[in-house]
Amino acid sequence: MKIILVGASGDVGQAAFAELSKRHEVVRVGRTTGDVRADISDPCAIEAMYEKVGAFDALVSAAGHVHFAPLAEQTDASLKMGFESKVMGQVNLVLEGMKRLADKGSFTLTSGVLDRDPVVAGTGAALANGALAGFVKGAAIEMPPGVRINVVSPGLLDVSERRYGALFPGHERVSSERVGRAFAKCVEGAINGQVVIVE
Amino acid sequence: MKIILVGASGDVGQAAFAELSKRHEVVRVGRTTGDVRADISDPCAIEAMYEKVGAFDALVSAAGHVHFAPLAEQTDASLKMGFESKVMGQVNLVLEGMKRLADKGSFTLTSGVLDRDPVVAGTGAALANGALAGFVKGAAIEMPPGVRINVVSPGLLDVSERRYGALFPGHERVSSERVGRAFAKCVEGAINGQVVIVE
Repeated sequence: MKIILVGASGDVGQAAFAELSKRHEVVRVGRTTGDVRADISDPCAIEAMYEKVGAFDALVSAAGHVHFAPLAEQTDASLKMGFESKVMGQVNLVLEGMKRLADKGSFTLTSGVLDRDPVVAGTGAALANGALAGFVKGAAIEMPPGVRINVVSPGLLDVSERRYGALFPGHERVSSERVGRAFAKCVEGAINGQVVIVE
Repeated sequence: MKIILVGASGDVGQAAFAELSKRHEVVRVGRTTGDVRADISDPCAIEAMYEKVGAFDALVSAAGHVHFAPLAEQTDASLKMGFESKVMGQVNLVLEGMKRLADKGSFTLTSGVLDRDPVVAGTGAALANGALAGFVKGAAIEMPPGVRINVVSPGLLDVSERRYGALFPGHERVSSERVGRAFAKCVEGAINGQVVIVE
């Protein structure tokens, strides 16, 4: 398969690449690194990215970020920022990709653990993760025939400990290998409309 | 209790009012009708509404709307519109209300069935409902001491049949009385961080 991997340089993106590149051609997309550069917060950049890559069999996204802050310090602007980056960035990859994806193709997005196992300062992430779960559930029944969509929802990766560990007291860390396999399950398997939990 | 009910004129708002007004003082808020007028898509209007109402014990919101359209016709703009109205409108009621709510107060928001039981053209609603579930789960652990937050997630109300029935083939309709009781459970009970399903 030819797989587009957006957000390839992040911890989740690297985990997906390590597993998927064993068996597939993976085109890495990032804002500042990768085979193709694209800032997916801009719908025009998404269109240009698809034009550049050409035909593909699967889109995997591990892109987007949210603002971590205590709820009392979150604002309309800080929550919308996370929504536009993590949710609409990935959603726009699907809306544009639907017109271009090969038969029997798939979309696999990335959310996270915080909408089911919250932490202090994580409301922006919880909101975004819930939105992605709802989107995938709704979109799955309207995909073109034979096309699937799922979302991988990993706990904090072991390799992310250094940057984010302090925010996740007591949360089990998950291995990059397990996260990578969740993407393989979505891309190479046949599930549709699922939130694939890795924890 | 003195309860602020935002979106009081809608079908869900009327169901909440019918039940809560039996035992409480309910201040009805709407864009164009009600005891107090406020368009909650504007954070300044939310602040002005709280100023006008003064001290209160609970905030119930049944406000916001989303765009129904086949997924292939949804756009960045149409999905953001629903998010800003149904999600951020309700979220901003919480962010501003947290500073003002009485001890042992509560927030009760409204989502809907489509993130767990999707219909064609309902992806915008599914996304918004999921976002609200995630927000409530995250926010519940950061509420001021003794303050609670929940979201009622009703199926299509029997009274909404005429306007929305065609969009929900085969979905069970739920009675306004049952929906009203779900709000009473959230406001008068002690649950926190829950999605209260009525179906």
